[in-house]
Amino acid sequence: MTAEPTRHLPFADNAAVRFVDTCLRGASQVFFQNNPITGLFLLAGIFWGSATAGTIPVAIGAVLGVMVGTLAAMLLGSDETALRKGMFGFNPILVGIAVPTFLGGQHPLVWLYLVIGAAAAHVVMLAASRALERYGVAASTGPFVITTWILMLAASSFAQVSPVSLAMPVLPHAIDGAVAHATITPLFLLQALFRNISQVFLVNNAIAGLLFVIGIAASSIRAALFAVVGSAVAMAIALLFGADAHAIANGLYGFSPVLTAIGVGCVFLRPSWKVTLYALFATVVTVIVQGGMNILVEPFGIPTLTMPFVLTMWLFTFPKMDLQPRSPHDNAAMDDGQAALST
Amino acid sequence: MTAEPTRHLPFADNAAVRFVDTCLRGASQVFFQNNPITGLFLLAGIFWGSATAGTIPVAIGAVLGVMVGTLAAMLLGSDETALRKGMFGFNPILVGIAVPTFLGGQHPLVWLYLVIGAAAAHVVMLAASRALERYGVAASTGPFVITTWILMLAASSFAQVSPVSLAMPVLPHAIDGAVAHATITPLFLLQALFRNISQVFLVNNAIAGLLFVIGIAASSIRAALFAVVGSAVAMAIALLFGADAHAIANGLYGFSPVLTAIGVGCVFLRPSWKVTLYALFATVVTVIVQGGMNILVEPFGIPTLTMPFVLTMWLFTFPKMDLQPRSPHDNAAMDDGQAALST
Amino acid sequence: MTAEPTRHLPFADNAAVRFVDTCLRGASQVFFQNNPITGLFLLAGIFWGSATAGTIPVAIGAVLGVMVGTLAAMLLGSDETALRKGMFGFNPILVGIAVPTFLGGQHPLVWLYLVIGAAAAHVVMLAASRALERYGVAASTGPFVITTWILMLAASSFAQVSPVSLAMPVLPHAIDGAVAHATITPLFLLQALFRNISQVFLVNNAIAGLLFVIGIAASSIRAALFAVVGSAVAMAIALLFGADAHAIANGLYGFSPVLTAIGVGCVFLRPSWKVTLYALFATVVTVIVQGGMNILVEPFGIPTLTMPFVLTMWLFTFPKMDLQPRSPHDNAAMDDGQAALST
Repeated sequence: MTAEPTRHLPFADNAAVRFVDTCLRGASQVFFQNNPITGLFLLAGIFWGSATAGTIPVAIGAVLGVMVGTLAAMLLGSDETALRKGMFGFNPILVGIAVPTFLGGQHPLVWLYLVIGAAAAHVVMLAASRALERYGVAASTGPFVITTWILMLAASSFAQVSPVSLAMPVLPHAIDGAVAHATITPLFLLQALFRNISQVFLVNNAIAGLLFVIGIAASSIRAALFAVVGSAVAMAIALLFGADAHAIANGLYGFSPVLTAIGVGCVFLRPSWKVTLYALFATVVTVIVQGGMNILVEPFGIPTLTMPFVLTMWLFTFPKMDLQPRSPHDNAAMDDGQAALST
Repeated sequence: MTAEPTRHLPFADNAAVRFVDTCLRGASQVFFQNNPITGLFLLAGIFWGSATAGTIPVAIGAVLGVMVGTLAAMLLGSDETALRKGMFGFNPILVGIAVPTFLGGQHPLVWLYLVIGAAAAHVVMLAASRALERYGVAASTGPFVITTWILMLAASSFAQVSPVSLAMPVLPHAIDGAVAHATITPLFLLQALFRNISQVFLVNNAIAGLLFVIGIAASSIRAALFAVVGSAVAMAIALLFGADAHAIANGLYGFSPVLTAIGVGCVFLRPSWKVTLYALFATVVTVIVQGGMNILVEPFGIPTLTMPFVLTMWLFTFPKMDLQPRSPHDNAAMDDGQAALST
Repeated sequence: MTAEPTRHLPFADNAAVRFVDTCLRGASQVFFQNNPITGLFLLAGIFWGSATAGTIPVAIGAVLGVMVGTLAAMLLGSDETALRKGMFGFNPILVGIAVPTFLGGQHPLVWLYLVIGAAAAHVVMLAASRALERYGVAASTGPFVITTWILMLAASSFAQVSPVSLAMPVLPHAIDGAVAHATITPLFLLQALFRNISQVFLVNNAIAGLLFVIGIAASSIRAALFAVVGSAVAMAIALLFGADAHAIANGLYGFSPVLTAIGVGCVFLRPSWKVTLYALFATVVTVIVQGGMNILVEPFGIPTLTMPFVLTMWLFTFPKMDLQPRSPHDNAAMDDGQAALST
């Protein structure tokens, strides 16, 4: 949600420029923004993260994913207004990042797998949006999670696209107290604070997280603030209850709560003090949901992705409460947000 | 559903008395009643069960849970009429019982965990009710199950709130014929008959079950009858198909069918002979669903809780059938029931 | 969907003939047809398959299942028009096939289990139809899958109905490259082409598959064409990505995609070239969903059944797109299809 009017890149009546602009907005919608500048910063962070980690195929996958998703929307004649806001890019870009992250980028069939997955994610987005639109609830990154879960599970069934960096399926066991004892240094806290944000795009890199925050702030200072505060709250709760310190340090307890903080705090509900408190409570709950889903996925060897955010956000925006007045002619507050999608 | 008008405790215009009255009704709504006397009997049974088992924190958790849930509803400005009927107490009270039952009551953070869980259960209740209200289907104890499942799974991720009495995650295997061979004595049958009812509150105690039946009867003789008949039917079916005799004896095959019998038989549908037969069939099906969910949860080490009831009740009350005429101006039969909730 | 007017068997005003006619249409609706001749061919294929495999109880289960489902619908006063189209027979017939297939037919209680399951499947069908009707999406074989999953899981809890041919629950592991190397012979391809179709009824027999195609063609040439093309596409994709060659040969990667091809290609959407391409993409996606669900069910030891089709079909028919114009007075194209069900 931005206060300023929608910005367009120069030469936006050129079809190619419009396509690039739409793809950049698609990237920015992962953080609920509709802003190509934000998208540029996010892509910069993704490239920085993948270059330093030696996983360039991940950045290429991101670009390919958002292009496939946008093309799929154009081919299917999906809603033009939603398309131009980037609503059909943010799930495919995440699919495009996840496929090479977990399956590697060596085998050519992995790239066909990515294209099928990114296009399918658009169909899942249309389906989820239609199911949820009557409730005024956003599908958000739910379609990315469902599509990627299927792709990751299926990778174990197909010899040509087998997993290279997924966990082995195991029966869950309670955390060993020792792994929860972190030596909390200022560096630990600072790194986790920004990795919580970079991990939204599956990037484990504090510099990338900083680029993301700058990108979000370019579109909405308030959203950037909620991102950082949500990250800090998530870290505090995870440390308090004694989660795996290694996971905390790598941002794995924070990327979903960060999205909850922004989404519930300043996108899907009309901002107020009461909503801010409600969003902080939702952020705390997301940390516990993250802990629960970590256990739930263990027998399948798949990552939780952003499902803890999606589930918590759905639960906290489904109720029709006084603190979120929402009548048909009264949703100006989320005009640019994902909730405005009507396909 | 009660035929008599809603009763209030004396001095109900005193805020404290009204709060206690609301909490007691919250307890009674676990059995679909809106009656503080029923709530008193239920609390008495819970205290008796936890005192004899040496698990007093469980009873304290019950009281704390229902208070947190009621307070959360007041803070969020949730529907006043529903609140006063106890609709926002029955999920949190069950969360309050489950947390110390499975995580113990030693560590102070367990109590913070309980408070977060009970408040979250209220949000889940609002979300589930909104999703289901257009179908005239009740959320019932679904929010309790979802919230508690997440809390129990997450407990394995957090060193400060680790499980003390959850099963170890295992891969399922078919029942060994030997454990199905029970020596059926009259005492076996009598104990199971009432433990099927006490286990609705996770209490394994026939005396508590008897107190529960008396409490239900104080509000609705018909509901008490359906509880006892449902319990007997569940026991018969579980014995017939050869379920684990130890589990049957402890009421673990009966608590969900008991709720199905009452809910489908005399709360959510307009009572008739046809509905009674339909409810008995639903009760039989619930025993099978219980058997299925026992297997489904084994790799995760979590209990089924009342999900077999919730799932079966949803399936049996979702259809719009001649045996359940329900038009907008025609739902007097469920005026006090959970289906009447509109948030 | 048939172009010709609904055919009735001669003497259709005789109650017994009408009952048989309804049951045969119930069988034919598994392939989205409303045609007793199709039903006869399908039953012939089922009897042929079970006779050659020495599993006659499976064919008896089919007949019993469809009769129980039809009777349940009559007893519950379910919608007469839908009943006569066979809409309440196709889920119970599949339950009736699955129970003796996986639990054997020796123990008398297995047959009671089958009857309870087939009747319950009707209730699940009513529930799913009501939940989906406002979206114009068909429940299709979803109720069969949900009911049978519960029955199969529960079989491990009950000593009298224990599984005889379900897989052992295991933790998933990635496919060994070796099992993906099939020697592709013309016989391999031809067998798989028809087993993909016979496996819709859990029959592993190419002759049965051929009988099924003839039966479908008797009602709709177009549907038969989509079945065969869908089968070929599924085989190609499964071979391309390197799925287990043994599973491909036995039709296990094709039965769900075949249903997707018919359902999306010529039943639920208004046929056009665009819809044909969309359906082919959906068919490809179904193969991946099949690969994913194969992994997901491994820790529980249950088969995927037709869930890959159901899930994909739901995702691809939920969106409201220009390629599927559907207004209240504009659904002639699916008049005979499952989407027309309104209970």
